[in-house]
Amino acid sequence: MTAPALAIDIGGTKLAAGLVDPDGRVLAHGRVATPAAGPTTDAETLWRALEGLLAEYDGPALAGVGVGCGGPMVWPAAEVSPLNIPAWRGFPLRARLRARFPGLPVRVHNDAVCVAVGEHWRGAGRGHVDVLGMVVSTGVGGGLILGGRLIDGAGGNAGHIGHVVVDPVGPPCECGGRGCLEAIARGPGLVAWALAAGWRPDRVEPTGADLTADARRGDPVAVAALRRAGRALGVAIASATHLCDFGVIAVGGGLSQAGALLFDPLAEAFDEHARMDFARRARIVPAELGQTAGLVGAAALIHVPERYWNPS
Amino acid sequence: MTAPALAIDIGGTKLAAGLVDPDGRVLAHGRVATPAAGPTTDAETLWRALEGLLAEYDGPALAGVGVGCGGPMVWPAAEVSPLNIPAWRGFPLRARLRARFPGLPVRVHNDAVCVAVGEHWRGAGRGHVDVLGMVVSTGVGGGLILGGRLIDGAGGNAGHIGHVVVDPVGPPCECGGRGCLEAIARGPGLVAWALAAGWRPDRVEPTGADLTADARRGDPVAVAALRRAGRALGVAIASATHLCDFGVIAVGGGLSQAGALLFDPLAEAFDEHARMDFARRARIVPAELGQTAGLVGAAALIHVPERYWNPS
Repeated sequence: MTAPALAIDIGGTKLAAGLVDPDGRVLAHGRVATPAAGPTTDAETLWRALEGLLAEYDGPALAGVGVGCGGPMVWPAAEVSPLNIPAWRGFPLRARLRARFPGLPVRVHNDAVCVAVGEHWRGAGRGHVDVLGMVVSTGVGGGLILGGRLIDGAGGNAGHIGHVVVDPVGPPCECGGRGCLEAIARGPGLVAWALAAGWRPDRVEPTGADLTADARRGDPVAVAALRRAGRALGVAIASATHLCDFGVIAVGGGLSQAGALLFDPLAEAFDEHARMDFARRARIVPAELGQTAGLVGAAALIHVPERYWNPS
Repeated sequence: MTAPALAIDIGGTKLAAGLVDPDGRVLAHGRVATPAAGPTTDAETLWRALEGLLAEYDGPALAGVGVGCGGPMVWPAAEVSPLNIPAWRGFPLRARLRARFPGLPVRVHNDAVCVAVGEHWRGAGRGHVDVLGMVVSTGVGGGLILGGRLIDGAGGNAGHIGHVVVDPVGPPCECGGRGCLEAIARGPGLVAWALAAGWRPDRVEPTGADLTADARRGDPVAVAALRRAGRALGVAIASATHLCDFGVIAVGGGLSQAGALLFDPLAEAFDEHARMDFARRARIVPAELGQTAGLVGAAALIHVPERYWNPS
């Protein structure tokens, strides 16, 4: 089989699509901004934006359509309600794509799960049997590959490392809980913490990238914010490694671009909490595939179903 | 195949063995006290005690030998160094059993993993695809069944829920870390906390069972100790459920006998931290098999290898 998969990555800020061959090479891809949320954006406006993008990559010989989409969703039916896309609530994404691409397999998973799959198939986790792939960005998400296969969980929601509790009396989380990793380490959370601690950025609405840039210039509050996030990541990864005994943990997403400013405190906290031999053997590495990881992973749902598509 | 498996459970206080048929029924079993640790107990003394017990159950038509043993161990070779059995350090348990039972499959896993397997195969997790089985006793351990199969992890150590961090500035743990679930919720840890908080037990060297008995009688410090353990369990189970999306969490072990004194604060903390729909669907239930769970699970390594024995 040499036909490429049509891969789709649906996020709160961008819609991406591309063709990915059976070896995981991205042959062509493009993106458009996700239509801004609000009263003027209804479910069909967003769908039409996606259809417009897909037209460029639709061909006569597709192996199938693989999709990563923000969660939560009812899985594997993929009735999606992405937290950061208010226009879609219970939107029947898989059914709509099936109608749009009759006769082709259509498979949808969480976007962070697709990134983890991409990193396992063709990135930093390649060749390993037990891998945690993580995205640290506007949110904190992930996916589990254990025993060489993607773990879905009872409802298709395994991989939510962003909601591992790192401080039971920590800040409230958007999920409704408290002290989740995501509440501390997500980009907007970091920015808010830094502003409250006295950070004075140049821009009115600063981002995690601005914070990282200021930390590189030595701003002590920006450095402390990344340190706080790094340590929270280290604690959560220690807990997850004790539970799952990963060989490799691949950390990607925009905030991972902070490099040592994030990874050094991460390693420090991991080292304090992961003291047993088996956990200390786990390697924590930067993700390798960058922005195409989600497309590569979405394509893997089509190209390598024996490992990555196992709805029970 | 109707031959029974010889099942063995090796712990710090007792050695148990029995015959378990292919349906998971325990046909016969017995136990002896583990020879006391100390300078007079060497590795061979312990081995002879085990051999003596096994002689009772050795028969001409065994399907194989399944073993649960305290960790850590090098797996699947099962060179075991149980934390609570100092006489064995790097003891070649699987090799010795293979020499003792020539021609039979011999399979060894962590004792808490075997309990989780037993509960999945024939206990509280039966019929579910994604199950966490836990033992809350002198230590806190567990095992993961995901996608219907036992998860081993990169080095055979998956399932260490006792070392999920529930309080990053919490008490030191015997593993060398800090704030692990086990540091707070293990029986001896609870007893120590209660004594420091003013508990006045009748016995000089009280146990978790004494603490539970006093809590049942309304001793406020004993109640508070169980509450502290229950809440720590709830936080750790919330984290684990977010990561793995379990359908069922089965909680067993001596301390689980405290019933509502432990399970009510557990449910309270879980409810505070597990707010997403998928996590709230997980059911937390008492384990069903009691003291034979480890034997049943050890036998499953032999009788149901397609689910429970997958070294890569």
